[in-house]
Amino acid sequence: MKEFQLKTTARTYSILKIAARYSLSALMLLFFQGHCQERKPSLEKPNVIIIFADDLGYGDLSSYGHPTIRTTNLDQMAAEGQKWTNFYVGASVCTPSRAALLTGRLPIRSGMASSMNRVLFPDSHNGLPQSELTLAEQMKKGGYATAAIGKWHLGHKAEYLPTSHGFDSYYGIPYSNDMDNITPFRSAGGYFSFWKSEERKDINTFNVPLMRDTEIIERPAEQHTITKRYTEEAIKFINEKKEEPFFLYFAHNLPHVPLFASKDFEGTSPRGIYGDVVEEIDHSVGQILDELKKTGLDKNTIVVFTSDNGPWLIMNEEGGSAGLLRSGKGSTWEGGMREPCIFWAPGRIEPGIVTDLGSTLDLFTTFSKIAGVDIPNDRIVDGVDLAPVLFNNKTSTRKDMFYYRGDKLYAVRVGDYKAHFLTQEPYSGPEVEEHKTPLLYNLSIDPSEKYDISEANPEIMAKMMKVVKDHNEKMVKGPDMLKDRG
Amino acid sequence: MKEFQLKTTARTYSILKIAARYSLSALMLLFFQGHCQERKPSLEKPNVIIIFADDLGYGDLSSYGHPTIRTTNLDQMAAEGQKWTNFYVGASVCTPSRAALLTGRLPIRSGMASSMNRVLFPDSHNGLPQSELTLAEQMKKGGYATAAIGKWHLGHKAEYLPTSHGFDSYYGIPYSNDMDNITPFRSAGGYFSFWKSEERKDINTFNVPLMRDTEIIERPAEQHTITKRYTEEAIKFINEKKEEPFFLYFAHNLPHVPLFASKDFEGTSPRGIYGDVVEEIDHSVGQILDELKKTGLDKNTIVVFTSDNGPWLIMNEEGGSAGLLRSGKGSTWEGGMREPCIFWAPGRIEPGIVTDLGSTLDLFTTFSKIAGVDIPNDRIVDGVDLAPVLFNNKTSTRKDMFYYRGDKLYAVRVGDYKAHFLTQEPYSGPEVEEHKTPLLYNLSIDPSEKYDISEANPEIMAKMMKVVKDHNEKMVKGPDMLKDRG
Repeated sequence: MKEFQLKTTARTYSILKIAARYSLSALMLLFFQGHCQERKPSLEKPNVIIIFADDLGYGDLSSYGHPTIRTTNLDQMAAEGQKWTNFYVGASVCTPSRAALLTGRLPIRSGMASSMNRVLFPDSHNGLPQSELTLAEQMKKGGYATAAIGKWHLGHKAEYLPTSHGFDSYYGIPYSNDMDNITPFRSAGGYFSFWKSEERKDINTFNVPLMRDTEIIERPAEQHTITKRYTEEAIKFINEKKEEPFFLYFAHNLPHVPLFASKDFEGTSPRGIYGDVVEEIDHSVGQILDELKKTGLDKNTIVVFTSDNGPWLIMNEEGGSAGLLRSGKGSTWEGGMREPCIFWAPGRIEPGIVTDLGSTLDLFTTFSKIAGVDIPNDRIVDGVDLAPVLFNNKTSTRKDMFYYRGDKLYAVRVGDYKAHFLTQEPYSGPEVEEHKTPLLYNLSIDPSEKYDISEANPEIMAKMMKVVKDHNEKMVKGPDMLKDRG
Repeated sequence: MKEFQLKTTARTYSILKIAARYSLSALMLLFFQGHCQERKPSLEKPNVIIIFADDLGYGDLSSYGHPTIRTTNLDQMAAEGQKWTNFYVGASVCTPSRAALLTGRLPIRSGMASSMNRVLFPDSHNGLPQSELTLAEQMKKGGYATAAIGKWHLGHKAEYLPTSHGFDSYYGIPYSNDMDNITPFRSAGGYFSFWKSEERKDINTFNVPLMRDTEIIERPAEQHTITKRYTEEAIKFINEKKEEPFFLYFAHNLPHVPLFASKDFEGTSPRGIYGDVVEEIDHSVGQILDELKKTGLDKNTIVVFTSDNGPWLIMNEEGGSAGLLRSGKGSTWEGGMREPCIFWAPGRIEPGIVTDLGSTLDLFTTFSKIAGVDIPNDRIVDGVDLAPVLFNNKTSTRKDMFYYRGDKLYAVRVGDYKAHFLTQEPYSGPEVEEHKTPLLYNLSIDPSEKYDISEANPEIMAKMMKVVKDHNEKMVKGPDMLKDRG
């Protein structure tokens, strides 16, 4: 059995090789000019679509090494675009990771990282504070139509929902798809043992709401068709807004457990239900890209695909894989925070593999600038502008990454090196291991974090400690928005 | 910094998609006809090149998920060809793996698997028996010119060398590149502690010979330039033989330790010296494919790239990575025996990702048939013909795989399932764990062999035990060729 894969001829390769070598600027100019004739008012403002998966691991796409998950569309997107291999999210669990993406700030600054709760729950009182400025608000300032589709998880009360944070509209499940009914977890003897029961296959068990803007329109949300319906909604939005620049934040609820696939996908992947679900998301990506091509919008749209955090390993076969990276969701090892990431904009983004550092934190800055909107100077923004890497074959200006767990700094990456001050298994309770001499790894040489080189490299560690000291001195933590519940 | 990656346009994709859907037979016919006009005597006989890396792991190519090793040429080869994700070697260490590839038979049958030594050494008395029939001998019968370049490791005495096994010529190091001088290992307090010493960077430490046919022409072989010189030799052979069908067995000595790269590559990979070496092999593959394209031979040549066994994990940063697979070289876990494998023949081999089972054992049968030569019926041949998968979008007829360590059957795969009867860490000494109830994994769902499902699936196990019983009943072991040394 053969899966169709991206392919090219030697000739295409050569042409693009030349284009890549001598910069794509001429080609890009052509596309820009082509676009001018199509859509007048926004000629410097490409549309932006962020597709965000939930709990998908670094190793879960075929182009990132999975042997049995067949992500034909994402692989093609990667070959036509940029496949980033050192791309990080702002936190290893849902809520703070999403806050990081939308604000461009480490969640500790916005109060979306707490010592008490790692994420928001249906009984949480708060959400992302109004004082935070979101990417959607930025894009609106730049004249963009904005929509959020899918998982939100930054507060389910009206004042915290997408429509209060710069999005013209919202359609989706406002938190995780497993979150709204604790009875079955109790009856199974706890959350994790519940996942062996047959009840996990019943959407009624979870009772999560589907919302339009601030109204619940379905409960429990029919999760078998949720990916399909999100996609239809996204395509509708693209078509409705094709005359103006638009920003679409499309955050899938899957492949977070519980796993549900539509009839067309259920039972089709050799990888089992997890594969069915990922392949349905891959299909959804294909539908979005096809729609852009069909409408000619591919010439003026930037699409990014990534995921909110690493695989939920404790879910066994129903959790994903971080590939060669260590650990997964909930952890500050690489598997928790490094994600597949693909940037796509044919004719604009130069195809290739990018090994430079990047982060969802950078999307705020990158797209604000593309929309012609200033970065606020009344607060620290952690993002850098990735445009030079995306469009001009330059090196990323991101040189470090801070790995927080809750409100504590566990690790830092500076260049190739990562130092761990604290380590902890993702879900093993409160056993934190403190490293008086921080563990040190060279991630370029040792991506699996196996070989501690701290002993031989005190001078590298000293340099890193300076970066950390500087970071800590400037840190202003926001008031904890996750702690109040019930 | 951006690495050039394979890319295509949407249009190329669509054209090839249609071609892929409606079978490439028409296109293939065209190529065959084109070929008829070029080279008369061998119109149905494409050239065959097998490129075989040494100790390269499943996760060591960018297209198989490595974040910092940049294998541009192999990735392009994979996108133009077939990327196999369930492809196995015949054993998890050098000598028996190579015997399996060249004979199409499990090494236990040819006596190339032993309870005493896992591989041949410079003081070994024997090698691959003359009674074995090699793929080279088959190709010769079919009228092919044959050459072996690189590592042999099936006996270094004249009667066991390539020129005694069907190859017209041989150029290479006859065994592993670390093998010929035990003094430094002794002085360092043993083989594995030696690998922390600076001596590992000196070619004189290893004193391995470079041979032409049966003569030593250089000692110690200059290993910094060995990949480069092998490649030059390969290109020379291709050009000399371009008027007749040829079979080239091109077995790199690297990335087996000691790691040596040429000046152009040393210090260039973010992955360190291991990356330098793999990227130089990748460059070599690019040179071979470019030469085929330049001479028009790409229209009539099948190229296969794979490796002899998994990564040598005990070498730490100087060993490779099995990606998401468990363990590595020396082990019967997947990381020891599943390898990257790419088949390439533009216009003949239908591009795609293949998740079906395949093995180096199958190359004997597949290429013998392509050369029009019968499979011998006086012995058991373990290979199947992969042509239906390669050329006609059919399902592989390989349904099982036997995992031997030395002369003992440790595990078996039947369809998606793998049962382990014995497990053992690759290099931990003699501690074999025997499983009264064999461990059972579904490799399609659980490629990392984490979740033993034996308890819930006695009926699957019963079916597999039947396959094993049948296999054992028919097994005739060859006399041990590895045991005599010194």
